[in-house]
Amino acid sequence: MHAPDAGAPGSVPARTATIGPGRAVLAFDVGGTDIKSALFDATGASRGLRRTPTPAPGPDGAHRLVDRVAELAEELRAQHPDAVPEAVGLVVPGIVDADEGVAVFSSNLDWRDVPLRALMSARFGVPVAFDHDVRAAGWAERRLGAARESTDAVMLIIGTGIAGALLIDGRMHAAGGYAGEIGHAPIGDWPCSCGARGCLEAVASAGAIARRYTEAAGTAVDGARGVIALAAAGEGTAARIWEEALDALALALAQLTAVLAPRTVVIGGGLSRAGDALFAPLRARLAARLSFHRLPDLVPAELSEDAGLLGSALLARDALT
Amino acid sequence: MHAPDAGAPGSVPARTATIGPGRAVLAFDVGGTDIKSALFDATGASRGLRRTPTPAPGPDGAHRLVDRVAELAEELRAQHPDAVPEAVGLVVPGIVDADEGVAVFSSNLDWRDVPLRALMSARFGVPVAFDHDVRAAGWAERRLGAARESTDAVMLIIGTGIAGALLIDGRMHAAGGYAGEIGHAPIGDWPCSCGARGCLEAVASAGAIARRYTEAAGTAVDGARGVIALAAAGEGTAARIWEEALDALALALAQLTAVLAPRTVVIGGGLSRAGDALFAPLRARLAARLSFHRLPDLVPAELSEDAGLLGSALLARDALT
Repeated sequence: MHAPDAGAPGSVPARTATIGPGRAVLAFDVGGTDIKSALFDATGASRGLRRTPTPAPGPDGAHRLVDRVAELAEELRAQHPDAVPEAVGLVVPGIVDADEGVAVFSSNLDWRDVPLRALMSARFGVPVAFDHDVRAAGWAERRLGAARESTDAVMLIIGTGIAGALLIDGRMHAAGGYAGEIGHAPIGDWPCSCGARGCLEAVASAGAIARRYTEAAGTAVDGARGVIALAAAGEGTAARIWEEALDALALALAQLTAVLAPRTVVIGGGLSRAGDALFAPLRARLAARLSFHRLPDLVPAELSEDAGLLGSALLARDALT
Repeated sequence: MHAPDAGAPGSVPARTATIGPGRAVLAFDVGGTDIKSALFDATGASRGLRRTPTPAPGPDGAHRLVDRVAELAEELRAQHPDAVPEAVGLVVPGIVDADEGVAVFSSNLDWRDVPLRALMSARFGVPVAFDHDVRAAGWAERRLGAARESTDAVMLIIGTGIAGALLIDGRMHAAGGYAGEIGHAPIGDWPCSCGARGCLEAVASAGAIARRYTEAAGTAVDGARGVIALAAAGEGTAARIWEEALDALALALAQLTAVLAPRTVVIGGGLSRAGDALFAPLRARLAARLSFHRLPDLVPAELSEDAGLLGSALLARDALT
């Protein structure tokens, strides 16, 4: 345990996330375009939380990523000498086999079967936690956020695409990294860029909602938010596309409810910021699609876009116990 | 432990199921029309395995069921005095909250919120295991049958309806009894007798396949088996109804694969006896509905119609450890 110094002059970042008291850890959340990084001190407060560009993908991409993460770690250590990190958390997108420590596949980062945990462990002299970004975000919502009352929850992040994570009986269910692909669970017959057809995210992601509107109306729009505003104002094309997205989400959630019966469905990502414009009709449509089933609570995520980083830090602490 | 006597003259029943060596237990598998019952001895062999009618449902149905089970237990004990049962397993259909020991709901047996484990425990002076029939069957397939190599499996029983059970990370996932309702997971828009619409079992159960054929063709048919035979012979209506059932099953399994990523899907019940006429096209259609996902093995159940009873016996033994 280390003395907190979150109040020391000059050390308070513009934005602070917190994971509660415990050991100090370094945490990284790697996305296709940027890396979020921070040092979490013994109070659980983040130090030096920031975004920096992800190294360009390529043949040597994983090694350059580890190099970059090590640089960021050195900077954080140098800037916060009073908080000595005892473990490192790294979370990445794609298909991640956390048990084996392998990044199985990422189209954004252009890698296959990269032993990232071993590469990280060889570089850092402390325990390394390695996992999937959305499962880490789900774990953070379980420990600190909207799913903290629940041992059975589904986490959906609806943005450019739709990613999911499953909390089952208090544990994240990974299945070698293949579980939780709710965005690519088929529910219809339209084409999807993944090669399958009828995937949820091709109709109901924020990206798809905006793209489908632009294709149908022939005019640009301010994202899914713009489509929802137009729909609310009675514009026919926007209303149809928004209804189709809501129906697709309700159908996917109805299947999840019948099969897994989660107590809580946490929805985060850009689309969740629509608030009641999303949650009220989605609750009504989900109830209308079911009968004897037990309805879950549909709630917005609480941890904002830092959920993955917080999860990374929590997993790093878990690696010390 | 008790000495085995499975070979003693006169003690071998017409049919013997086995769960392997262990303590002797009584096992009951209650269905809407009959009760399967047996005593499992220390070798794991069943003694006196038989079916007897389930008491008629009604206001006092649960108490009459417990009375009947106690009678059957007395008969088994009297007939097999060398194998002294140390626990009792009881499995029933419907929505079963095994954690609380409560039969939450059964339309066939007409009960709601019956504390069956407590009623059984008050009657029997030994530990009572109480669970859901299909989860018990899934557990038996996990321990003794088609899922014994897998910690992540889905069990589907396709007969009059479609029931499911989920093995996740080596444990049956119940969610208070609401998980595994794959037969009532919506995948389309047709009506279902449960009150929802688009449920898998309304198109793809053996019962639905036969009923839909008779409705469309106006002639009786020898069950789903008859429809499959007519489809194989090129009869158009039968071919269409069988294709629709296969497509619905493939879509439901594609969703399960994307969300849960089981290693194994075990299919039992009457429809599974179609063998390759079911499994070969279903494997092909499942693969065609997916892209980067990890395909599960689709395999027939191995334990025949005794799986629920075997699971009941295994759970009774588990109650002793």
